[in-house]
Amino acid sequence: MAVKQYIQQHQEKFLNELIDLLKIPSVSADPKFKGDVLQAAEFVKESLIKAGADKVEVCQTAGYPIVYGEKIIDPSAPTVLVYGHYDVQPADPYELWDSPPFEPVIKKTESHPEGAVFARGSADDKGQFYMHVKAFEAMMQTNELPCNIKFMIEGEEEVGSNNLESFVKENKDKLKADVILISDTSMLSLETPSITVGLRGLAYMQVEVTGPNRDLHSGTYGGAVANPINILCQMIASLQDENNHITIPGFYDKVEELSLEYRAQLNKAPFDEADYKKKLNINELHGEKGYTTIERTGIRPTLDVNGIWGGYTGEGAKTVLPSKAYAKISMRLVPNQDHKEIATLFQNHFESIAPKSVKVKVTPHHGGQAAVVPTDSAGYRAAEAAILDAFGKKAIPTREGGSIPITSLFQQELGLDPILLGFGLDTDAIHSPNEHYGVKNYFMGIETIALFFKHFKNAAQ
Amino acid sequence: MAVKQYIQQHQEKFLNELIDLLKIPSVSADPKFKGDVLQAAEFVKESLIKAGADKVEVCQTAGYPIVYGEKIIDPSAPTVLVYGHYDVQPADPYELWDSPPFEPVIKKTESHPEGAVFARGSADDKGQFYMHVKAFEAMMQTNELPCNIKFMIEGEEEVGSNNLESFVKENKDKLKADVILISDTSMLSLETPSITVGLRGLAYMQVEVTGPNRDLHSGTYGGAVANPINILCQMIASLQDENNHITIPGFYDKVEELSLEYRAQLNKAPFDEADYKKKLNINELHGEKGYTTIERTGIRPTLDVNGIWGGYTGEGAKTVLPSKAYAKISMRLVPNQDHKEIATLFQNHFESIAPKSVKVKVTPHHGGQAAVVPTDSAGYRAAEAAILDAFGKKAIPTREGGSIPITSLFQQELGLDPILLGFGLDTDAIHSPNEHYGVKNYFMGIETIALFFKHFKNAAQ
Repeated sequence: MAVKQYIQQHQEKFLNELIDLLKIPSVSADPKFKGDVLQAAEFVKESLIKAGADKVEVCQTAGYPIVYGEKIIDPSAPTVLVYGHYDVQPADPYELWDSPPFEPVIKKTESHPEGAVFARGSADDKGQFYMHVKAFEAMMQTNELPCNIKFMIEGEEEVGSNNLESFVKENKDKLKADVILISDTSMLSLETPSITVGLRGLAYMQVEVTGPNRDLHSGTYGGAVANPINILCQMIASLQDENNHITIPGFYDKVEELSLEYRAQLNKAPFDEADYKKKLNINELHGEKGYTTIERTGIRPTLDVNGIWGGYTGEGAKTVLPSKAYAKISMRLVPNQDHKEIATLFQNHFESIAPKSVKVKVTPHHGGQAAVVPTDSAGYRAAEAAILDAFGKKAIPTREGGSIPITSLFQQELGLDPILLGFGLDTDAIHSPNEHYGVKNYFMGIETIALFFKHFKNAAQ
Repeated sequence: MAVKQYIQQHQEKFLNELIDLLKIPSVSADPKFKGDVLQAAEFVKESLIKAGADKVEVCQTAGYPIVYGEKIIDPSAPTVLVYGHYDVQPADPYELWDSPPFEPVIKKTESHPEGAVFARGSADDKGQFYMHVKAFEAMMQTNELPCNIKFMIEGEEEVGSNNLESFVKENKDKLKADVILISDTSMLSLETPSITVGLRGLAYMQVEVTGPNRDLHSGTYGGAVANPINILCQMIASLQDENNHITIPGFYDKVEELSLEYRAQLNKAPFDEADYKKKLNINELHGEKGYTTIERTGIRPTLDVNGIWGGYTGEGAKTVLPSKAYAKISMRLVPNQDHKEIATLFQNHFESIAPKSVKVKVTPHHGGQAAVVPTDSAGYRAAEAAILDAFGKKAIPTREGGSIPITSLFQQELGLDPILLGFGLDTDAIHSPNEHYGVKNYFMGIETIALFFKHFKNAAQ
């Protein structure tokens, strides 16, 4: 197959281009990187043009633009819509990176003996969406593109994809396709390939607790005036009971109790608890009573504080009773839990448990619905076949704990089940310092994607 | 009395000198201000020399220096040792200051209709110790200094006075005196003058909770791995029960239950709850069940979180399950509670309540013992007489919630009961943004201090 040969001959070029993209600090959450995010959009546009796409366009939205491009080889052939995002998570805390987050370096790791690119966004999602651009280039250069292709690469995935819904609604014709293909998830390992068939939803909240109208001296007022940090800690602690069940009234109402058979099937995925704990350097796991780790991260909703701050956090000591304390709290949701409904339940509950000595403000930040991918579609069969070809093994279907809120949007608005063909590993430290993406995963991904197109052409007809 | 006239004639000069001192950002907690702290020590030295002190010396310690100076008019006359501190609290958060913390401005407030100097350290303690330098100058210039005087002005009060104990122990002869006079507290108001006769002790701790060895993606790992912020919140919440009693075993063992008569006496101090709440803009008070606000801040120990941080605290959202979470926690202590013993009780308890899924590190920061000042001493009688002369009213003895850890050091090492003759107001926002000190309080303080010397000469003989 000429495509495979082309990919192998151009590995160095493919890697260097990715490194150039990774040098752009396109952090969508922080306005100070605005210019860089826009520069990343331009980079995507140029790379689509160079790869051979037509009608390439940086589509403006109320936020960061969505880059579109397409190649229609034959109106009667099946069409693959590729989704990805060029924005990245903030790199904080910078001091925990072994090398600067926007100066990519290649280093070997235990999981990546052939090397991995270390940089913010390497796995999530630049390294993964760029595989599609390169697979497309390879198919174009070798005249082996078997399906029509459309690209939709956005710049606000890490901040909730706020403008994607209206873009999708307004461009249904333009985005018409037979399948939507997304590489923004992980697989179990290169030896145990897997395809994600479930994603959790997300409701992300910010809370602010106000005590006195100004910071006070904790000696003069301590003991008589509510300390917003102490109160916030009490409120957060009360959100989970001693079994790590979430205590928000109504929170579990729509959570589906899955059958024991289904759970048994799910638990067949390889999981080495000792190794899992060793890699994280923890002595004990911690989660909802009555469920395994695979269940806790796959089919059960959770509540995590993603950030907390208040009072004096500098060097040394300051005896302050602060005016305010803040936290960012997110809940991972499972199918049927509506993220807007959960946000409202959270808000009502959090306000109701505040003592009268403080004021509480709850701001829903962003959210997304959970998604379940059917395994009997043409797209899934093509993905399975591509993985079998590339890896020599049948893919295991897995439920992933993370969220790609837009998957359910595509299901609703475009009527397309997403195929979640991701090549990262759980140990790639996405959203963390020292994020990296395996060089071999990158090349294997490009090859698998090209194979997907071949199989989809057949499976869809 | 010539002294009083001198003070009134030199008000402008006295105020301008204080403003110069307040411009020096002598923040002892933060190493980046080291040069400024040393500059403040030099300023104190120069001002003592100009006011007429002998043997003025910047005494080196393992930390910031202690400025000493004296004037011995007659070896047989009583000697007053003045203690104060030239270091200040950190000014964070800067954005909440209406004017820059080290650019003093004079503005009128509700409590200070004749104006107050706004600057970090204006009330705590630059504006207050400098009154002693100016009262001394006035007595020298008018040949009315009736007692010997010694100054000991340190630069580490806001970080625990770590090097004062060894200085005091090594300089017992040099510091020999009949009374130690300190202005680092507040009074009820200019209309209701008071003298502080009790101070709480302090045990200040920093805690660190570590979950996984790196920041994780809260989707991939959330629900399966202990989140150190959630755990820290649960641990902090558990330190107080539903009645706001502290749950650390043994914490109350040495707390004296004061008689109902004593408590009734204490509660006679003027306290307007509606006004107190209004000034802080709070709807309800919050404290230990069974005690009044005056008791909660005066005779009962407390526990406050002074700072908390962990995870992502920037703009926008980051779905991180962080590796670490931190808090600064301090306890105000009452007489007989030993701060070192309490620090140990806290540490043992906090470590014992940590679940096995996290690691906990507790670092005792600094501390100090509580103090009670007898009201039957020559010093106290002189202070009462000075206030009666200056304000036309008898001072009310009060217990203050704050800590001046070194008061008990002076009692133990020098055998001197401190006289806590402070002129700040509780509303002066010490340790907070917009700290200020009343201009009238400053001048009245200088006058009262000079009167103290007159009365102490008589009371002590």
